[in-house]
Amino acid sequence: MTDALVIFTPSGKRGRFAFGTPVLTAARQLGVDLDSVCGGRGICSKCQITPGYGEFSKHGVTVTQDALSEWNAVEQRYKDKRGLIDGRRLGCQAKVMGDVVIDVPPESQVHRQVVRKAATARAITMDPATRLYFVEVEEPDMHEPSGDFERLAKALQRQWDVPEITAGLEVLRKLQPVLREGGWKVTVALHKDHRAGPHRMLDIWPGLYEGGLYGLAIDLGSTTIAAHLCDLRTGAVVLSSGVMNPQIRFGEDLMSRVSYVMMNPGGDIEMTRAVREGMDALIADIAREAQISGREIMEAVIVCNPVMHHLFLGIDPVELGQAPFALATSGALNLDAREVGLSTMNPAARAYLLPCIAGHVGADAAAVALSESPETSEDLVLVVDVGTNAEILLGDKRRVLACSSPTGPAFEGAQISSGQRAAPGAIERIQIDPVTKEPRFRVIGCDLWSDEDGFEDATEATGITGICGSGIIEAVAEMRMAGLVDGSGLIGSAEQTGTWRCQPEGRTHAYLIHDATATGGSRITVTQGDIRAIQLAKSALYAGARLLMDEIGTDRVDRVVLAGAFGAHISPKHAMVLGMIPDAHLDHVTSAGNAAGTGARIALCNVAARAGIEATVGRIHKVETAIEPRFQEHFVAANAMPHAVDPFPELGQVVTLPAVSFNSGEGASGGRRRRRG
Amino acid sequence: MTDALVIFTPSGKRGRFAFGTPVLTAARQLGVDLDSVCGGRGICSKCQITPGYGEFSKHGVTVTQDALSEWNAVEQRYKDKRGLIDGRRLGCQAKVMGDVVIDVPPESQVHRQVVRKAATARAITMDPATRLYFVEVEEPDMHEPSGDFERLAKALQRQWDVPEITAGLEVLRKLQPVLREGGWKVTVALHKDHRAGPHRMLDIWPGLYEGGLYGLAIDLGSTTIAAHLCDLRTGAVVLSSGVMNPQIRFGEDLMSRVSYVMMNPGGDIEMTRAVREGMDALIADIAREAQISGREIMEAVIVCNPVMHHLFLGIDPVELGQAPFALATSGALNLDAREVGLSTMNPAARAYLLPCIAGHVGADAAAVALSESPETSEDLVLVVDVGTNAEILLGDKRRVLACSSPTGPAFEGAQISSGQRAAPGAIERIQIDPVTKEPRFRVIGCDLWSDEDGFEDATEATGITGICGSGIIEAVAEMRMAGLVDGSGLIGSAEQTGTWRCQPEGRTHAYLIHDATATGGSRITVTQGDIRAIQLAKSALYAGARLLMDEIGTDRVDRVVLAGAFGAHISPKHAMVLGMIPDAHLDHVTSAGNAAGTGARIALCNVAARAGIEATVGRIHKVETAIEPRFQEHFVAANAMPHAVDPFPELGQVVTLPAVSFNSGEGASGGRRRRRG
Repeated sequence: MTDALVIFTPSGKRGRFAFGTPVLTAARQLGVDLDSVCGGRGICSKCQITPGYGEFSKHGVTVTQDALSEWNAVEQRYKDKRGLIDGRRLGCQAKVMGDVVIDVPPESQVHRQVVRKAATARAITMDPATRLYFVEVEEPDMHEPSGDFERLAKALQRQWDVPEITAGLEVLRKLQPVLREGGWKVTVALHKDHRAGPHRMLDIWPGLYEGGLYGLAIDLGSTTIAAHLCDLRTGAVVLSSGVMNPQIRFGEDLMSRVSYVMMNPGGDIEMTRAVREGMDALIADIAREAQISGREIMEAVIVCNPVMHHLFLGIDPVELGQAPFALATSGALNLDAREVGLSTMNPAARAYLLPCIAGHVGADAAAVALSESPETSEDLVLVVDVGTNAEILLGDKRRVLACSSPTGPAFEGAQISSGQRAAPGAIERIQIDPVTKEPRFRVIGCDLWSDEDGFEDATEATGITGICGSGIIEAVAEMRMAGLVDGSGLIGSAEQTGTWRCQPEGRTHAYLIHDATATGGSRITVTQGDIRAIQLAKSALYAGARLLMDEIGTDRVDRVVLAGAFGAHISPKHAMVLGMIPDAHLDHVTSAGNAAGTGARIALCNVAARAGIEATVGRIHKVETAIEPRFQEHFVAANAMPHAVDPFPELGQVVTLPAVSFNSGEGASGGRRRRRG
Repeated sequence: MTDALVIFTPSGKRGRFAFGTPVLTAARQLGVDLDSVCGGRGICSKCQITPGYGEFSKHGVTVTQDALSEWNAVEQRYKDKRGLIDGRRLGCQAKVMGDVVIDVPPESQVHRQVVRKAATARAITMDPATRLYFVEVEEPDMHEPSGDFERLAKALQRQWDVPEITAGLEVLRKLQPVLREGGWKVTVALHKDHRAGPHRMLDIWPGLYEGGLYGLAIDLGSTTIAAHLCDLRTGAVVLSSGVMNPQIRFGEDLMSRVSYVMMNPGGDIEMTRAVREGMDALIADIAREAQISGREIMEAVIVCNPVMHHLFLGIDPVELGQAPFALATSGALNLDAREVGLSTMNPAARAYLLPCIAGHVGADAAAVALSESPETSEDLVLVVDVGTNAEILLGDKRRVLACSSPTGPAFEGAQISSGQRAAPGAIERIQIDPVTKEPRFRVIGCDLWSDEDGFEDATEATGITGICGSGIIEAVAEMRMAGLVDGSGLIGSAEQTGTWRCQPEGRTHAYLIHDATATGGSRITVTQGDIRAIQLAKSALYAGARLLMDEIGTDRVDRVVLAGAFGAHISPKHAMVLGMIPDAHLDHVTSAGNAAGTGARIALCNVAARAGIEATVGRIHKVETAIEPRFQEHFVAANAMPHAVDPFPELGQVVTLPAVSFNSGEGASGGRRRRRG
């Protein structure tokens, strides 16, 4: 017998190979996912495998000790220098000498899966656009003259099946010295275009490159720019960081920025410069903190809403501020990072922007769709990404709808009298005793409730400084449940509510949560204005979801996914009490964390996901809230907080209240107008 | 009968069409080459045709007066406004109503042919990469949101069969205002990639754009940068201009520039900046002189030698200065003009560089090949482009060989004692009476010979200032034919030659052509050093040609094409007497003018020619002279000027001389060493 049966695990792929066939060669011929950067030259060690020695009859194969060629000098040298786990072999060195079962450990798989943090999330399969290729290039021959670049292209074709490459002038400039320095052995970083087109050479290094290879998943929000530095070889998030969007000085919300452009010719250019500089500075900070060179960052995937999308690209967003809200371009964009002012990354780095769904539903919503895949859901899922604008997706594997809703900044703690951003010292959880009407709360940075021992000591450093977005939602919902607020949203007086904490403030009342003014601290209240702001925001959110439900012809959804940083901290129960989201079984309301950022990370780590989300976006049905009369109807109807219903017995904690009404003047008819599922 | 036979001339294409079919529609369905920018909307007037009224029985068809629909208001309006030749109709307005013969005049053909100046040249078929498309775009619809760009792409696909487009940020920025200004009717300039890939939108205008559409054919030489501004719609050369290559301050010839880089780190960056700025300034001058906006220039085709190629691209040319003369990249390049510092043209303008053939045989030689098409020649043709380096092509339809030869600058009048560039006052033609040994000559800027009446008056303004390249060749050849120079290249004394004009100069002699020192003018001589310089140059040129002939296994060529500005002025007879080029029938030695520039113009006007020359270059066999021992042999052998042979009786003017030898010391054996065809 001169050939042997080789079975690979975990894939189960099997085949017969002539004695002496390197395991790596066998793996390649069978299409087994076994990594290699150096192409089998015994220098990169990416192809480590574990042969199943001694496991007799495993998979019906009798494996003997001599099923692979003997441990060789190359492997010993690698082990001495870098270490190699006992039992591991290098797939390019070990040769098949008998029937054998070979396990490919996860770290040797090219398309290994990266587990996402969120409990409900699927894993990301690693298949980044940018990969490294070690290649040996033929030396120039005067008699067969061809350019060094053309010979490199030929080598990549022969050794790696890369059909065609292209390169910018910056890389071409390095090509000749690097080829010679590496003795015609080089590593190149190639970026694969997920559509047609040649691979693009981003960088080249002499010999085997062992430095870093990174990408950035960037969530470009109206308020903050958040970026995750990912290792393109492992998929790991190495570092996450964020900065305020420097455009904030031109207007807190998007429409005020569009107005700024309308009133200040050239204002879009100022804003474009500001956001690009802000992002570039963030990238520089990240590189510094991660102790890597900017050159090691090969690409960025950027998600953002349509106005940020246009301003970042340098396109006047004025059309987005008026019907019919036409985007200049809605398709995904594959750009040079330099072209959009990102100068810190590799000079040849690429920037990919996900497609926009509609004039009000941007690439951030597309990223949420990529992360949450409503188009593959068996049951009807509502995905809500709450920010200054809420992006809302509703659908299942048959059909997905999308819209956006102008919730305003109240959910982020802005325009709230005691509101603040989510930071240590901010109240994030609150409970109000329905009998005593006394509050207890927790602040960010402390695990204790305010009525627990040690709370004062624990919060001495930060103080109690305000209420963040999730805190204000809980506060309003708890006030409603405790009978402090009536169905129209009016706060009762001390007499009406039976608590001294309801104190007059101007012509209305405010509920006092915390008062440390005696010791120089803060006085934290929920005012009538705060309630009104939250009512507007939650009505907008609810109306958007309702509109999509109308469109799909349903009165209820099977599950709700809350996305966004805010979504991660929100209490589903309180959100439902408040009427922010349609009723659903409480167990079926989950948080997806920063789903837009996750979507960006998926597109960064898996190039096929780009084509996938581009196709999905093309199939998503868009609903424009701004001109839809039913949106206004739903919005008005959703304004009231008539009573805290408990549609499901499991929501036992929610106290069902009579429809308290403090006076008959304001919002008394809210109860009748409100429609709930 | 409800349909009619339509025959188009000159194509002869014919088909039957339903009554009422517009002529333009019929033409399109038959694939007849009838232009239209507006797509049949009656506004561009590009589709003018001449129906064959009254020509009974032409092509076997009886044509009646009512074979086309009546002259209509659209045609009348166009005629009133712009004029229309009698008998012409607009193809989009005139409808088929009976059998008809329709002529498409040349100016209505998209692929019309442009006649080249040189007598031997083939015509250029117009099919430029950049063309205009008038298109009507759907307005945005909130209920079916898509980007303006995506709707434009859809319109181009439907109305013009353009499969896919892409656009840079600069154009995307203009898109929305232009679409609205034009009422959703716009003209776009699309650049077609001759390889795969989408069409690139270079610019967009509201409504029907009637401004200019230009391209540049640029011959980037070591000494001069010459550019031809071409109208991309007609193919006409609107304006030609040139400047000195500002790199000259870093070294006269290429190798001294490569040396400059070797000795001055960063010197390549200085030189890159210099040449890019020089080219950009030239383009700005051309636009100014032609009274057009730089925006109207959509693309440039650039040809140059390998060192200029690398320096222009910003690549260190050091590898080109030493064996194996490896190019960083040899393939054709399709770049953004901005990327190579050309800021005067349209911001989205493209730059195409022809492929290089080898480390010493550049894109300029490829352009000569494109112009002269040796690969289609029935007989064996030698194409010689003489400059500081000579590019030499030899071949026929079976096989084409190429090499370059380091002729040095002598042929351009440099390193010649009385040498000067070709400018008014320079001696360009010279004859020496074989009996009296007296010279007569002509200078640039004057049609008279020096011994004709009125010569002195006619040359008073310019003076007689020196000898240009073609003049020195004639002078040396005439001196040899008059017996003033022996076979080794030695100038005889007055005694040996019998003329006082052979005067001592140091240890050798010089031949006095003109002496106006008495009146403050020039003294113009041919010195022994000049003869040596010409000998070196002509030996190099001849040796290169000879090497290719060896390779192909032939002793003679069927025809010789002299290319380059110098080639246009050279006297074939004198060149052959001198032994610059292999012997050929004098009638078969032609000048192709600036063939490199013509090749650039062809690639500019016909996009398919780009793919064509790229394929041709891949098939050209390269011969490297620098390391070929036979080149040295040929070079040494070709040094002598043993006698002025007349291999063909038709070359009657060439006087056959005895092999004069003034002494036995120098070069006496040249006659034996010299091999001729």
